[in-house]
Amino acid sequence: MSKDNFLDATLQIINVGLESFASDLKAFGTEVIHVDWRPPAKGDPYLNTILKAVESRGEVIDAANKVAIERMLAAHPVFVDVGSALETIPGFTPKTILHAGPPVTWENMCGPMQGAIIGALMHEGRATDEAQAREAAASGEYTFAPCHHYDAVGPMTGVISASMPVIVVEDKNTGRRVYSNFNGEGKGKKALSFGAFGPDVEEIQVWLRDVFAPFLKQVVYALGGIDLKAIMARALQMGDEVHNRHVAATSLLVREIFTAMSMVKVQPNDLVRIGKFLYYNDFVFLNFSMAACKLMTLAAHDVPNSTLLTAISRNGVETGIRVSGLGDRWFTAPAPQIKGLYFPGFTADDANPDIGDSAITETAGVGGFALAAGIGLVKMVGGTAVDAIAYTKEMGEITLARSPMFLIPVLEFEGTPTGVDIRRTVETGISPVINTGIAHRKAGIGMVGAGITRVPMECFAKALSAFADRPARG
Amino acid sequence: MSKDNFLDATLQIINVGLESFASDLKAFGTEVIHVDWRPPAKGDPYLNTILKAVESRGEVIDAANKVAIERMLAAHPVFVDVGSALETIPGFTPKTILHAGPPVTWENMCGPMQGAIIGALMHEGRATDEAQAREAAASGEYTFAPCHHYDAVGPMTGVISASMPVIVVEDKNTGRRVYSNFNGEGKGKKALSFGAFGPDVEEIQVWLRDVFAPFLKQVVYALGGIDLKAIMARALQMGDEVHNRHVAATSLLVREIFTAMSMVKVQPNDLVRIGKFLYYNDFVFLNFSMAACKLMTLAAHDVPNSTLLTAISRNGVETGIRVSGLGDRWFTAPAPQIKGLYFPGFTADDANPDIGDSAITETAGVGGFALAAGIGLVKMVGGTAVDAIAYTKEMGEITLARSPMFLIPVLEFEGTPTGVDIRRTVETGISPVINTGIAHRKAGIGMVGAGITRVPMECFAKALSAFADRPARG
Repeated sequence: MSKDNFLDATLQIINVGLESFASDLKAFGTEVIHVDWRPPAKGDPYLNTILKAVESRGEVIDAANKVAIERMLAAHPVFVDVGSALETIPGFTPKTILHAGPPVTWENMCGPMQGAIIGALMHEGRATDEAQAREAAASGEYTFAPCHHYDAVGPMTGVISASMPVIVVEDKNTGRRVYSNFNGEGKGKKALSFGAFGPDVEEIQVWLRDVFAPFLKQVVYALGGIDLKAIMARALQMGDEVHNRHVAATSLLVREIFTAMSMVKVQPNDLVRIGKFLYYNDFVFLNFSMAACKLMTLAAHDVPNSTLLTAISRNGVETGIRVSGLGDRWFTAPAPQIKGLYFPGFTADDANPDIGDSAITETAGVGGFALAAGIGLVKMVGGTAVDAIAYTKEMGEITLARSPMFLIPVLEFEGTPTGVDIRRTVETGISPVINTGIAHRKAGIGMVGAGITRVPMECFAKALSAFADRPARG
Repeated sequence: MSKDNFLDATLQIINVGLESFASDLKAFGTEVIHVDWRPPAKGDPYLNTILKAVESRGEVIDAANKVAIERMLAAHPVFVDVGSALETIPGFTPKTILHAGPPVTWENMCGPMQGAIIGALMHEGRATDEAQAREAAASGEYTFAPCHHYDAVGPMTGVISASMPVIVVEDKNTGRRVYSNFNGEGKGKKALSFGAFGPDVEEIQVWLRDVFAPFLKQVVYALGGIDLKAIMARALQMGDEVHNRHVAATSLLVREIFTAMSMVKVQPNDLVRIGKFLYYNDFVFLNFSMAACKLMTLAAHDVPNSTLLTAISRNGVETGIRVSGLGDRWFTAPAPQIKGLYFPGFTADDANPDIGDSAITETAGVGGFALAAGIGLVKMVGGTAVDAIAYTKEMGEITLARSPMFLIPVLEFEGTPTGVDIRRTVETGISPVINTGIAHRKAGIGMVGAGITRVPMECFAKALSAFADRPARG
């Protein structure tokens, strides 16, 4: 082939497989023939049987998914209140302790989750040291339950005890409420949410409870609510993917808080610390984002025959998912390790497996699904801008919709890929991508890095088997 | 050429011309042979003679440009003070009125600039209506001068009169100071800076002078300065290009202001309006960005033998540039029209030609040069994400450096193309791109849209002729 001939000919490329690569080429004006074919479920005979069984109900499922995804997209989360977990979350008792992920007993919890519960028991005045706390936790005196079972979410260990303050997020349309705790520590290692405990951690918890939460309660009452969906939409145009990058959303939140300053009473000394806290902690918005995403996914839950994913959650031992048409069952698999970047002095050997309720953001179509909007995050979790864009495009292969409100500038303002259809996940072998913090595997240490992981495909295989009324494999 | 042969062969593309397209292909793993050739100055014989004359001093110029660009990149702008123009800007008298762009007489000013001066004369108490103001302006009583002649910059008409408050921005390294006025109106049409005047406009000017400026002075004194370079660097990672998109930078500024709230005294009523102003006006940071960029470009000015561009400025009739090694001379050409998007009810027929000192941002390597960082801006000025990225890459063809601090996530954190070499502009025929607001061509109306334009090539031809000690063409 001579170069002259090559240049004379019209450049034509045949693209087999992912459509996203084809789209990239199209953007540069190259003519592309896209052949959309892969062996379903990578040729796995068991999964193909399940897929075929589900396929026979295709029309019913499609109609159910349409209802479910419309509900997810219509939900409109607004931050409306602040209060103690005990007084605010329905069903909470003085002896309730919530945690991230699917159910797990004290004995089977990972190190950081035990660490956070030790910190919580000290905070509740039930223990003064680690040994006493471990004894109390193992005594049976406390009820441990997933946050999700209380319409709540918490990042990393997700531990919420009775006197901790929580934020209340309400659906503007339906009035339904969900809850999350406060992010008190930013990116620092010594965070309760990452399994740290001790005097420094307790000092922050006390300040959150006695100063920051009451201040924010005044603010939200003065403003009559803060529209979280609007903040998220703007933040996605400002380099946040609203799971692990929140600098824009937190800044926008502070701008709203500022408008209430003429209406709140606060001691000058407290205001000094509130100012510093809101200035240095770019993660303040994380828990608001998670609550908003929980509200969106909850709105889509419990639609009969829907294969829409409505929760991804990890307790540090297992990753579990929930599916709209499959009620409150968890479909679990061992939690994976995370590929990421570590703080100086730490390595992958220190890392706990994937943990936290924060993958509710990916479930709602942001976080890892919106990495093309939050390219700056690759500096924290590793990878390149090209990788970030590719993740978002790949998630388009397994989702039911593009968000009409959460738009991605670099993709010509296309909406974030939203609402995973578990059929598509099994069929394509593409599993939802999650970007996440990494906790030290031992209790009492805290954050050691951040990175990227995937939901184990086994969760989807189990869920789709249940959907097909077939026994799970193995 | 059969498709089989095509697919078997190693794909090889010869790219003639812009290197940026070659880089795009490289990103997708295609092997590219880049042949960097165009006819210099598009084959223009006069310009080629000038280019050759300058080429003989190539080594001296290169060395001078190295000094100049290093000074531009090293400048570190910090917001340090607020005061009235009269008391703050050296040489300012009660009868001084500054305006944007190169020098222009009252008679020759465009409509919006006359409109802003009418507003300023009303604000100074010299006139109560338009007729009286026009008479005063034409009387010779006032000295009209470019902001740039006073180390100041103002957006659009750039009008600054004696009692207007200005911000003071200081170079952390050298102590040199520059000045800008306040952005009082956001994106609204009825803005003094866009040539509007009247009771509404005056009310804002009074509030800025009596309430907001004194408040901000307390804030900046309490904080001991606000690092503008740091805010700009963060904002460029958050979707701002810091010329016409400032939502991130303004939000970050508010976050800094919040940290001072325990140290300032402000009436509750004033705080209500300050809160609303900082919440609804995403353009608050514009004038800070411009002052910071003026400081950076001024640091690079007056290096003998340097062909580095140190100012682009437009008075709405002419566009003028300054060059580091050519002292304070302006090289001018008629101001171009702007290709843009218009507010409802307005068209290109209503548009004044390009106006404002704000192209100092492009001179410092942001604004239009950083469009790849501020893709969201295309919703305001027109175009696509692909266009925005292409503009930034194109500006890489005529600039001397990549900023080590202003990084663009989508370009794998490459620095913004910084410091235009006027030789490269003439040689390549690529003129600096500017994104800008559009003023109505008549006095008293205000903003009608926003868009994209270029510096007239004639400015560069004239400057390079002067550099070569040759008479300008024509």
